Amino acid sequence: MTVGSFDFAPLLRPGLPPPAAKWTGLSRYSFIGGNNDAAQLPLEGLIAAATTVLRREGTTLATYGLASGPLGYRPLREFLVGKLARDAGIACTADEILITSGSLQAIDLVNGVLLAPGDTVLIEQETYQGALTRLARLGVKAVGIPLDREGLRTDALSAALDELKARNIRPKYIYTIPTVQNPTGTIMGEERRRELLGLAQAHGVPIFEDDCYADLIWDGRRPPALYTMSRHGGVIHIGSFSKSIAPALRVGYIVAGWEILARMLALKTDAGSGALEQMVLAEFCTAHFSEHVPRLTRGLRAKLETLMASLAEQFGTTAEFDDPPGGIFLWIKLPDAVDTLKLSQAALAAGVAINPGPEWSTDKAYAKSRMRLCFASPTADEIRQGVGTLAEVCRREFGVPTRIANVEQCAGVAPG
Amino acid sequence: MTVGSFDFAPLLRPGLPPPAAKWTGLSRYSFIGGNNDAAQLPLEGLIAAATTVLRREGTTLATYGLASGPLGYRPLREFLVGKLARDAGIACTADEILITSGSLQAIDLVNGVLLAPGDTVLIEQETYQGALTRLARLGVKAVGIPLDREGLRTDALSAALDELKARNIRPKYIYTIPTVQNPTGTIMGEERRRELLGLAQAHGVPIFEDDCYADLIWDGRRPPALYTMSRHGGVIHIGSFSKSIAPALRVGYIVAGWEILARMLALKTDAGSGALEQMVLAEFCTAHFSEHVPRLTRGLRAKLETLMASLAEQFGTTAEFDDPPGGIFLWIKLPDAVDTLKLSQAALAAGVAINPGPEWSTDKAYAKSRMRLCFASPTADEIRQGVGTLAEVCRREFGVPTRIANVEQCAGVAPG
Repeated sequence: MTVGSFDFAPLLRPGLPPPAAKWTGLSRYSFIGGNNDAAQLPLEGLIAAATTVLRREGTTLATYGLASGPLGYRPLREFLVGKLARDAGIACTADEILITSGSLQAIDLVNGVLLAPGDTVLIEQETYQGALTRLARLGVKAVGIPLDREGLRTDALSAALDELKARNIRPKYIYTIPTVQNPTGTIMGEERRRELLGLAQAHGVPIFEDDCYADLIWDGRRPPALYTMSRHGGVIHIGSFSKSIAPALRVGYIVAGWEILARMLALKTDAGSGALEQMVLAEFCTAHFSEHVPRLTRGLRAKLETLMASLAEQFGTTAEFDDPPGGIFLWIKLPDAVDTLKLSQAALAAGVAINPGPEWSTDKAYAKSRMRLCFASPTADEIRQGVGTLAEVCRREFGVPTRIANVEQCAGVAPG
Repeated sequence: MTVGSFDFAPLLRPGLPPPAAKWTGLSRYSFIGGNNDAAQLPLEGLIAAATTVLRREGTTLATYGLASGPLGYRPLREFLVGKLARDAGIACTADEILITSGSLQAIDLVNGVLLAPGDTVLIEQETYQGALTRLARLGVKAVGIPLDREGLRTDALSAALDELKARNIRPKYIYTIPTVQNPTGTIMGEERRRELLGLAQAHGVPIFEDDCYADLIWDGRRPPALYTMSRHGGVIHIGSFSKSIAPALRVGYIVAGWEILARMLALKTDAGSGALEQMVLAEFCTAHFSEHVPRLTRGLRAKLETLMASLAEQFGTTAEFDDPPGGIFLWIKLPDAVDTLKLSQAALAAGVAINPGPEWSTDKAYAKSRMRLCFASPTADEIRQGVGTLAEVCRREFGVPTRIANVEQCAGVAPG
């Protein structure tokens, strides 16, 4: 009926981002996004949890927030109290936890209470693209701190803090993903954490600790959270069920003192995050989280080994990477001649989706020949075939790798 | 561990709203919020839907957006295509529908693409509080247009549009809840809708049509949506499953042309709305929506009658109201001496939560003695007892009603 002749253009808010492109489906070989391993999804457990929790207390869905108040479904917060104590050493109460619609809403709430246009934050030089794009939209200056194999380099951080102090700039926070860093996969050791906390305290700068991937560690061992180790407070901790259970569920959380949670709650005007997902997660996780996660990480580790073997086979020594201690992605250096922004376009046309390094770094030149490959979602076959196609495209576009392996080039005959 | 001595105050973004107060639980007699009738929640249907849909396609939860793309779970959008055609006469495709995290996110996205500080919008003088608070936070001027028994008065709208035009102001939109207006409960007739559309077209102002309550009409009959009737486009239509199924689920939707949806999608950086809730709703609603809604509205109508009878009994002629054609709330005029902002505070202390009129109006003086009572959530007993307590408090504070009915004052002996 609506013919749509009305022109909205003159009424649009100035400064909007460009319009979204129409969605054209997932790539055949998708190495992007935080998608998880469909085969490891605990489907029967989630179905049983849904039935049990709905039958027991499903009528509370008729009330906003399930009569648990704005912090989120209390049994889920109570599960988190136990989980965070066990895994991350965090001693907190359910009233220091705010359930969010994914960790993206958590990031938005942290940014919402702290950041104004023109502010400065410190951020890992290679970091989560969604954090970078948010800062750019907010008009906030993101100062990238280089990483090494233990994550954020505290010597570089110290220098950056001093330099900002000399210019009378107090950064609003230090954003770090210390436990399975995205995209480099490193885990920051306890000593480095202490140094980081010391610098943050000395400069009066809060730490924004994103522990999104911290559940996915091959040997299950991790240092205590920065939130735990801090003696002066000033750490905001966020996490997610996207990587440990299922990304489409959109359930994350913030751990912080009430002083700052009260500010975030005032900005969380969504009448609560999705209740059914919170209920099902609480019911499932309370009984099964600690048995589910090691099974999931074993599957992820196997996929990572397939990916590393495929890269070695197809790219030989032209693809450099460290074997990460956990996570769902591999950060890869290709020869300097390769521009991964261009590679990603050519690969996409060939059905292979990758994350080009410059989108995951504040240093576009450093990241030019780097890329992130996520390995949780594709099957082992798709990993092998996708890497084969990527190597072909890379050779065609940039001349490397010089020799394409003559095995598994043909999708149809790849072994299972 | 964290002792929390860190002081965030100097780092907070300027202009933040006041911190949230700690949640102290629901009131004993709660006549506020869009909570629904727990007894009418289709629990067994939702459980069956969850089991069926998860068993059939639950592994897609491992992929953001369930491989349906950013507009939301396709079967839910397809259900809506049929539902909107049947109920509201809207002919649209699944690609003109964006699933949101409740209709609050829908409002935020509409505002996000159109509104900048200093802008002007036209809005029904009595309207949804959440719309008013959002406009105030955005620094947008809301010009209230008076209502009559058919909703937005087009004579007043015409005058306001002319007056703004004379001052060279083009309002960004006309916000209306034409089908079961919140809080007045009116339904705008077809002729009035035509007049409204004519004025909007003549002035080049889009209409923001909020059809949140449109499913809850006693006789099930409603005029076509403004979105349908518009010949020039320029209508953005939103709706929700909060009122028809369950508010805690947080699933709403926007119907609009791609030109404007593409702008909203660029702002919807949440990696999708909750997938489990979308899946369960699609599965349940496709089979059962049209049988569930009339059952729900029969129950709501019965509660409304209890509320109206209790008000007549307790307040006599001092409480004036129209019998609304649908919805979950009643808009009530008390004697001029009553200040409902004060009444709401005193009533809250007595365990009765009400919505004071000034929070639901751009004209605080007009709304001073008015209040909104939601009747879907409390039981019939709670309605009777809550209204009794409210009358007592009102008499104590304002001297009206002069005579308190001597029945059902005692909670314990009220009939069932």
